[in-house]
Formats: sequence, structure tokens, C-alpha cells
Amino acid sequence: MEIWTSAAPFMGLGGLLCSLLLYFYIKKSPAGTPEMVEISEAIHEGAMAFLKREYTILAGFIVIVFVLLFAFVGSHTAYAFLSGAVCSILAGYTGMKAACHANVRTAQAANQHGQGAALNIAFSGGAVMGLAVAGLGLFGVGALASAFGIWDDISQASAINGFAMGASSIALFARVGGGIFTKTADVGADLVGKVEAGIPEDDPRNPAVIADNVGDNVGDVAGMGADIFESYVGSVIATIAIAATASASLLATLAPSISDPTSAKLAAMSFPLIVITIGIAASLLGVLMVRILQNFDPGAALRYSTWVAAALMILGAWWVAGTIGLSNQPVWALCTGCLAGIAIGLFTEYYTGGKPIRTIAETSKTGVATNIISGLAIGMESVVLPTLGIVVAIGLAFHFAGLFGIGIAAVGMLATVGITMSVDAYGPIADNAGGITEMAGLGEDTRKITDGLDSLGNTTAAMGKGFAIGSAALTALALFSAYSSAIETSTGKPIVIDVTTPVVVGGLFIGAMIPYLAASITMTSVGKAAFKMVEEVRRQFREIEGLMEGKAKPDTRRCVEISTTAALREMILPGLLAVLAPVAVGFGLGPIALGGMLAGATVSGVLLALMMANSGGAWDNAKKWIEEGHLGGKGSDAHKAAVVGDTVGDPFKDTSGPSLNILIKLMSVISLVLAPLFVV
Amino acid sequence: MEIWTSAAPFMGLGGLLCSLLLYFYIKKSPAGTPEMVEISEAIHEGAMAFLKREYTILAGFIVIVFVLLFAFVGSHTAYAFLSGAVCSILAGYTGMKAACHANVRTAQAANQHGQGAALNIAFSGGAVMGLAVAGLGLFGVGALASAFGIWDDISQASAINGFAMGASSIALFARVGGGIFTKTADVGADLVGKVEAGIPEDDPRNPAVIADNVGDNVGDVAGMGADIFESYVGSVIATIAIAATASASLLATLAPSISDPTSAKLAAMSFPLIVITIGIAASLLGVLMVRILQNFDPGAALRYSTWVAAALMILGAWWVAGTIGLSNQPVWALCTGCLAGIAIGLFTEYYTGGKPIRTIAETSKTGVATNIISGLAIGMESVVLPTLGIVVAIGLAFHFAGLFGIGIAAVGMLATVGITMSVDAYGPIADNAGGITEMAGLGEDTRKITDGLDSLGNTTAAMGKGFAIGSAALTALALFSAYSSAIETSTGKPIVIDVTTPVVVGGLFIGAMIPYLAASITMTSVGKAAFKMVEEVRRQFREIEGLMEGKAKPDTRRCVEISTTAALREMILPGLLAVLAPVAVGFGLGPIALGGMLAGATVSGVLLALMMANSGGAWDNAKKWIEEGHLGGKGSDAHKAAVVGDTVGDPFKDTSGPSLNILIKLMSVISLVLAPLFVV
Repeated sequence: MEIWTSAAPFMGLGGLLCSLLLYFYIKKSPAGTPEMVEISEAIHEGAMAFLKREYTILAGFIVIVFVLLFAFVGSHTAYAFLSGAVCSILAGYTGMKAACHANVRTAQAANQHGQGAALNIAFSGGAVMGLAVAGLGLFGVGALASAFGIWDDISQASAINGFAMGASSIALFARVGGGIFTKTADVGADLVGKVEAGIPEDDPRNPAVIADNVGDNVGDVAGMGADIFESYVGSVIATIAIAATASASLLATLAPSISDPTSAKLAAMSFPLIVITIGIAASLLGVLMVRILQNFDPGAALRYSTWVAAALMILGAWWVAGTIGLSNQPVWALCTGCLAGIAIGLFTEYYTGGKPIRTIAETSKTGVATNIISGLAIGMESVVLPTLGIVVAIGLAFHFAGLFGIGIAAVGMLATVGITMSVDAYGPIADNAGGITEMAGLGEDTRKITDGLDSLGNTTAAMGKGFAIGSAALTALALFSAYSSAIETSTGKPIVIDVTTPVVVGGLFIGAMIPYLAASITMTSVGKAAFKMVEEVRRQFREIEGLMEGKAKPDTRRCVEISTTAALREMILPGLLAVLAPVAVGFGLGPIALGGMLAGATVSGVLLALMMANSGGAWDNAKKWIEEGHLGGKGSDAHKAAVVGDTVGDPFKDTSGPSLNILIKLMSVISLVLAPLFVV
Repeated sequence: MEIWTSAAPFMGLGGLLCSLLLYFYIKKSPAGTPEMVEISEAIHEGAMAFLKREYTILAGFIVIVFVLLFAFVGSHTAYAFLSGAVCSILAGYTGMKAACHANVRTAQAANQHGQGAALNIAFSGGAVMGLAVAGLGLFGVGALASAFGIWDDISQASAINGFAMGASSIALFARVGGGIFTKTADVGADLVGKVEAGIPEDDPRNPAVIADNVGDNVGDVAGMGADIFESYVGSVIATIAIAATASASLLATLAPSISDPTSAKLAAMSFPLIVITIGIAASLLGVLMVRILQNFDPGAALRYSTWVAAALMILGAWWVAGTIGLSNQPVWALCTGCLAGIAIGLFTEYYTGGKPIRTIAETSKTGVATNIISGLAIGMESVVLPTLGIVVAIGLAFHFAGLFGIGIAAVGMLATVGITMSVDAYGPIADNAGGITEMAGLGEDTRKITDGLDSLGNTTAAMGKGFAIGSAALTALALFSAYSSAIETSTGKPIVIDVTTPVVVGGLFIGAMIPYLAASITMTSVGKAAFKMVEEVRRQFREIEGLMEGKAKPDTRRCVEISTTAALREMILPGLLAVLAPVAVGFGLGPIALGGMLAGATVSGVLLALMMANSGGAWDNAKKWIEEGHLGGKGSDAHKAAVVGDTVGDPFKDTSGPSLNILIKLMSVISLVLAPLFVV
């Protein structure tokens, strides 16, 4: 066991090294014509300027929380928080840096060498982020665990929770900020450019088009990087926390062959770390496999590599479990997690790509109202099967390995994040490459290649989404369980959060209400900011002479500036809501009400997030399906209605929905870290 | 105490008698020109045909459930179920009959005698239903309680729960069926008539216009009648059930002066019945007050009468509590309920009539997408304050009188239903009178009066809505508490529904998911049926020569038929979902998981219902605000966008939203009735 826990940080560094090598590989590739470089530079510059200002604001937040944690909780927790926040920033920054370089080079490769070369660059760009997320997470948790000496003194384990808190706080701000940025630009560019002026997507005459592409990078890449990083470390840390406070009966299930309870606990605590260590190795193999297999069938390469990496991870975990004295029970829970993630991914894919999108497209024929009604109805229906999937996963994982099983099932979904995230991040890169292709006028053929690349990874990305959603629910539950254990440890007596008591019901209601409030705030922010963007784009079309004729250039910086300012201002409120709600309820109504609140927030947040993400995805793909030539194709009345549906879905799927997954975990992890303070 | 419990059924009959007198008073009034009578007859006929077919289907359902209850639960429960179902049907039927007669006579009175006379008829029409609901409820519960001898043998009390189950089952079907009917017709009439053909609302050339008016009667009147009847008896019965299984410490709070626990229980059990007995008397006074005060200031008449009735009810309850040996604690809980209801009503009014609707109107300037986004965002935000209101009410009511307090707080919100519902039902009557005015061409002046009447009761109706929402949440909780007591009684040991256990978490997730599924089904139903209606209306405009010129008559029966068939077919699935879900979870996963499910469904259902109702209301009023001449008024681009938002909001506020309030109570009451079976 010790060899594994010592190896973990080094394995993390290994992942980071691979990420770095891939980054240099990308930078070495040709970036194309001066025009392409200019466009790419504008995007890169806008993205960097945004991140710099975002991180400046967050630095203030980090310092304040660091000081408070240092003063009231403990120095280890404070340092862990700081490390988590910094690692999260690094994960987002690296991914975005890589994506910005990969975008233009993918376009160039598509133009010069065709699909294979373009896929290679785009996927490498995604892999930089995938491996950086996994590497930073493994390094951070592994190194802190050793530094705090938790393998010698289990009572130190709780300090690591601060790492998850740091990661989650930054993730929420980054997701919300990035989400508002990207959708402000997107909605603005679409409403005026596509709908009013009638010019195509990514047309260089559109003043908001650079902001739109910057948004893809700061929202879909940097935001998602911080998001997945948060899930990844959250699940691992929650599982460690559960193991550290495991009961004798749970230990008997997990490690029946180890009689000393401390040793048994240590073995269980090391297991999630070992699983992600193996996961990063399996992901590296997966990345290599993609590079080899893509020459035969690119789609299959992405798909099979993901599957093989997951299978290798489980096999490895099974082998190691035996060597460190654990039973097969946690491995079964691990499998449960993977299978549930795949199932949820398939359900998601069905609702955002199967028959339902054709239903939405059909209803677009009778206008916008029916398109919106059916999109919302399908989003609501789409929560049913994933919810049942989550319930079954909870039941089975618990059956196999108690509360530890629920945590490790979440870890199982995220252990191969190195590869699943590469596939996820590759999508926006291909998308951006398409934008650059359009703006630089590289022609129809190149655009077809980049569009093809974009859709190539969709099935595999659905699996990644299923993992993200499922793991969010399970991680939140695991954190919630860890929270109740922490309260029990602090008070020295068992905690009962009984929903037949009014205080718990009150907590449930408050908790369930918070995701609605957060979703409302983020949607309103997008609405307000998009309104300003629409006015600015209209102004430019009106005031800049020769813009529509392509003789004058639009003022793209102004649009980037609008998105940046709006995103940074509007990310504060939802972030503070998530941070302050558990503090207020914990101190105001006590730890039992807070337990109710966390349960209510988790259940309500998971459902609302699923509904919003799936409605948004379904509207988007219904529009794309019509654009493929069905029901009259582009320009038809059905298409016009579908475009409006897609615009409504934009903040659903890219701002509010994803924010909720982080929100529920952030509230849980804050409660976990502050638990000892609530019982004083 | 005995005098009160014996008087209850007679007081109920008294209410029914008053309702009947008012009914004859309306029928005696002049019905207007032959043309008006013809239109009114068409509406009446369509509504009756619908109800007849609906009740035929429900008869089958009632018989099956009756037999099952008789065989597996007990004959008393089965008879109670039957009575509840029959009373619910009667409440809806009476209200609708009265509304159909009142509509045309209100139009005639407005045309001949002006506002005062019109208000008189419209309010009397509402009062027929208000008093019928209250009278039937009081008579049903009071008579059954005496018939089952619960005042002599408390163990018989649980059989009355069947009455609530009967009322809730019928209410759900009626609400869903009526909601689908009305919105199918409304959306169909609006999309083709107003948007495509450009003819005004309620234009007689529109083939769907009669169906639209029928829909107002079967949805807004009959559906709402069954809905409120269900809330009314649900809250009373839940409170009786809690009192019947009250612990010694609870009894010490409620009736400190009664030493014999059985006598104390009986006093507590009789209290909710006494409160509604007083409530019906207070309502009668309120109705009289309106008839006197309306000659001075009609708006104030509606408002003050409602307030005075509530104050009288509380005063009466306080006096009786003293005489039957109860402390003031339950009276305080009663006040809490009333105040919370008023607060929730005010919040609702703000979000559906205050600044937020102007925000939605403003966003309509940038198109449909921003209108929809802001409407949804405002709906989501609007859940925050009512939720906090509910939480505070739960806390205070529990503080004053334990679980009994939560039940009696809900009773307090509904005790004056005789008057609040009169005001509620009067709205659709005035609305329908406006429709008849338009179709019969009675001119602008008459239309202005009916429009004025419609908006007159809005503030007061908001209070009624607050009572309905707040009482739904509290009644569901009270039923849920009664359910846990029933499980405790059956097993003989305390029940703990601990959200830190996976089985409860699983239940929470399943329960929280069900409202999403129900909302999705009902919205899809409206979408599908509206699609058919749109096609039929388009066909008639295309195929019937001279229709647009007013030379030929549309085939209105065909449109009524489409709405009827769709509503009856589509109401089955959500109804069965609500009935079968608790049965499946109770038998499949056990009573603890079912407890989790009920908690999850209550929390999620209340929030989703609030959001949908308020979004819908806000969209509606944003459109009306523009129509008043703001932002370009009728025909402007902003107006067009707002019309689409209103159409999306239609199924939100009139079909899916209200159904959810019944759904959560129906699932709770079914669980309560079947509780003994789950623990075997």
C-alpha cells in the first residue's frame, strides 16, 4: 500500500509531464496563414485577458477564505484550500492555453492535410487538458496526503477536505463566469448576426464573432476544466473522508483480511488514490491508442480507447485491491459506477440526439411556442431514466461496499478522466477550428472536415457527460455522508436527519430552493448581458460604414469587453450564494437543518441540472437536424422557430445547468469543512 | 364539543342550501338575446358533454379502487373513498353548472345595467361554487365521522382518510383533464386565430372559440372546484389523523386542561371540523358583505369581505378552543397559516403583476428568446420567498402546536374557502362573459365592463392563490406526518426516515423526479392536442368558404370534440402515475423508502408548481401590460414576442402547475390509506 501512496504524487507529475509534452507538440505544428494567426491571436488575447481579470478577482476571494480557514478551522485546511484553488486555476489555464493554440492549428491541418492530421491536433489539444486535470488532481491530493502525514495519523485526514473546497469554489466561479461570457457572446452574435442581419455563423463581419470564439475557450474549455477537476478531486476526497471515519462493520466488508482497524482504514483510504493512479496510466494508454487507431477509423478510435481505458482501470483496481488486503466489494462498487455512468450517458444521448429531437423539430412547424413547450417537456421527461440510474447505482454501490461504495462508484466514473476529458475538450477545439476556418475563408472543404470532427466525438462525449452527471450526484451524496460522519465525530453521538421533523423539512425546502435561485440568477445574467451585446452589435452594424459590405472591420474588442465585464460582475452573486448558504443555515438553524438542506439541494439540483442540460442539448440538436435539410432546412419557418429554441437552450445547457452540479458539491464540501464549527 | 361535531354536517347542509338559493337566483336573471342564449347553450352543452364523458371514465376507476379498498383495507375506508369521489364530482359539477348560467347573465347584466349588476351575478356564480365546496366538504367529513362513530371510538378515525383519497383522485383527473381541455382550445384558438389569421380574441369566426370558452368552464371552474375541494378536505382529514395518533406531550400542549388522553384527543380531533364550521359561517357573512358593499366600491368589497371573513373565523376558533378545553396554541398556529397564506399571496402577486412583468415585457423587445429566458428566470426566482414563507410557517406552526399545528395552519388557510373561492371562480365567469359579449357583438362598452370585472378581483384572487399554494405544501406535510404515525401505529415502533441512509435518498430522488415526469406528460399532452387543434382550425379557415368574411359559420363542435377526446385520453397517464407510484414504492422498496419519496415529491412538487404557475402568470400579465399600450402596444414586435411567451405559459399555469399541487397530496393520502398494508 505504501508504495502506492508514495507513488501517487509522482504518477501525477508523470501525467503533467505527458500533458506538457503534448502541449509542445501542438505549439510546434504550423499555425497557418498570417490572417489565421491574427484571428487566433485575437481569440487568445481575449481569453487570456478574461482569465487574468477573473483570477485577479478570485485571488481576493481566495485570500479572504484562506485567512478565515486559517483562523477558525486550522492551518492544514487553509493550505489545502489554497492548493486546491491554485490547482483548479492551473487546470483551467493549461487547458485553455492548449486549446487556443490547437484551434488554429487544427484548422491549418484540416486545410493542408485533411481529417487525420486535424483530428490529431484537436485531440492532442484536448488531451493536454485531460491529462493536466488528472495529473494536477492526483499530484495535489497525493502530495497533500503525504505532507499532512495522513498515512501515519488518520486524524489528519480531514484537512484534505480543504483541497476539494478550494477546487469547488474556483470551479463554481469559473463555470458561472465562463458560462455567462460564452452565452452572452453567442446569443448576441446569433440574434443580430444570424437572425437580423442574415449573415452566416462565424462571419468575420459580425462584431461579436471573436467574443463568441473567446467564449468557447473560456466557457467550454477553461470552465469545463475547472468543473471536472472539482468533480475528480471531490469524489476522491469524499471517499477518503468516508474511509477515515469508517465503522467497524464497514471495515469488515471492505478489508475482511485486515484485523487491525487502523490498517484497514488506511487500506480503504488509499484505495481511491490508487484507483485514480491506475486511471491516469490507463488514460495515457488510451491517448496513445487514439493516436494509433485514428488512422483506421477515427470515430471508433475515440470510442474504443475510452472503453479500453475504463476496462484497464477496473482490472488494475481489482488486482491492487487484492494486494493491499481489500475485498472485491469496493471493486464491484467501482464497476457499478462505471456502468451507471455509461447508462446515464446513453440516456442523455437519446434525449439530446435521438427521437426526441425530431419531435422538437416537428413541433417547430407550428411555431416557437410549441417548440419551447416540447423542448421543456422533453427536458423534464429526460430526468426520469438518469434518476432511476442514479438510484440503482446508489443502491448497488451501497449494497456492495456501504457508504464507501457510493464514493468509490463516483471515483470509478472519473478515474479515467484523462481520456474522457480529452474527448470532451476536443469538441470545442474542433468547433473553434471551424470558426477560424470560416473567418479566414479557408473554404467549404476545410469547414466540412472541422464540422465532421466536431460531430465525431459526440457519442463518446455523451459517455463523458453521463460520467459527469452521475458522479456529481454520487459525489454530493458521498460528501453529504462524510458531513454527517464529521458531525457525529464532533458531537460524539449518532446524527439522525429525519425528514419527519420540521427542522429537516425546513432544510429540505431551503436546499431544494437554492438551485432554482442560482439558475434564475445565472439566466438573468445572461439575459441582461446578451441584451447589451445585442445593442452593441446593432450599433456597430448601424454606425460603422461599409461593415456589411466587408469593407470595414468591426470593433471586436468592444464585444469581448462587454462579455468580460458582464461575466466577472455576474459570477459573484451565485458564487457567494453557494458559499454563504451552508454557513448561514449551519450557524443559524444548526447542523441537522443543514443536513436537510444539503439533501434537498442535491436532489433538486441534480434534477434541475439534468433538465436544463438536456432541454438545451435537445433544442440545439433539433435545430441542427433541421439544418441538415429536414422539414424545409435552413431558412424555413420551422428552422426559425428552432433557432429561438436553441437560443433559449444556450444558457440552460452551458451556464445554469452545469453550474448547478458544482453548486451542490460546493455546498456539501463547505459544510464538511466547517462541520466542527457548527456543533460548538 | 359534541354539539359542534353533531352540528357540523348540518352546517354543511346549510352551506349547500345557500349555494342552491344563489343558484336559483342566478337562473332567474335574464339571459339576454336569443343569440346570446344560443352561444351560451353551445358552451353549456360542450361543457356538460365533456363532464359526462369524464365522469363515465372516472366511474370505472372509482369502482375498481372501491373494490380493492373494500377487499384489502376495509369497508369503511372504501365507503369513505366513494363518498369523497362523489362529493368531489358534485363540487365540480355544481360550480360548472352555476358558471355556465352566470356567464351569459353577467354579459346581459353588464349590457343592460352596468358594472354593479354584472358583478352581482358573476360573484353569485362564484359563490355557488365556493359555498358548494365548503358545504360538501363539511357535510361529507362531518357526516362520515359521525357515521363511523369516531367520536366514540378513535380507532375508527383512520377510515375517514379514504374520503380525502377519493377527493384527491378525482381532483387530479379533473384538474389534468380540464387543464388539457382548456389549454388545447386556448393555444389552438390563439395560434391560428390571433397570430396567423389576425382576428381578435373571442371572434365568432374562430372555430376554436367555443371550445376555448368551454375550456374556461371545465378547466378553470370545474377543475379548480375539485382542486380546492381536495385541499379543503385533505387539510381537515390530515389534521384529524394527526390528532387521533397524538402523543402525550403533544396533547399536553394542545389540551393542558383535559387530563383524560382520549377526551383530549377527541377535542383536538374535533377542532379542525369546528374551524371549518365557523369558516363556512364566516364565509356566508362575507358573501353577504360583498353584496352590500359592492354598491360603494366593488374592489374593496371583494377584498375586505375576504379579510373580515378570515378575522371572524380566527376569532370564532379562539372562542371555541377555550370552550372545548383546548389551549390557545392551535389558534396561534391557525393565525400562522393565515398570515403565511397572505404573505405567499402577496409574493405571488408581486411576481405575476409587479416589476417582474415589466422586466419580461422589456426583454420582449429583443425577441421571443429573451422573453422566454426572462420568464423562466423570473419563475425560478419567484419560488424563493414563498419557500421561505412556507419554511417559516412550518417552523412557527410546529413551535406553537407540534405536527398538529402544521395541519391546523393549512386548515386556517382553507377554512374561509366559501368566500376566497367565490372570488377565485368569479374571475373565469367575468372572463367568459367577456367572450360572450364579443361573440354576440354587444359592443365595446359592455366588453369594457366585463374586462374591468375580470381585473377587479385579481388582488383578492392572489390571496386565494397564496392560500392554495401554502396549504398544499402544509397539507402534504401534514399527510406525510400522518403517514409516518400510521406506520408507527402499524409496526408498534418509532419510524425514522433518515436522509443519510441510501434507501431514503433513493426515495427522495424518485419522489423528486415524479413531478418532473407528471409535468412533462401534461405539457406534452397539451402540445400534441394543440397541434391537432391548430390543424383543424387551419383546415376550417381553408375549406369553409366565406368563413373569414363572416358569411359562413365555423364547425365549433368539431373543435370541442378534439379538446374533449384529447383531454380524456391524456388525463389517464398522469392520474395512474400518481396512484401507482406510492403503491409500487411502498410494496417494492418498503415504507421507509416511501417516506423518502413523499418528502422528495412534496419539496420538488411545490417548487416546480410555484415556478410553473408564476412563470405562466408573469408571461400572461407581461403580454397584457404591453396590450395596455406600453412598448408599442398591440401589434408591435414586443407584443408578438409576448404572445408567444403567454402561449408557453398557458400549460405552465393552467395545466401542469396546478396538477402538481394535487399530485403530491394524492400520493401522500394514498400512502396514508395503504400504510398498514406496507408493513405487513
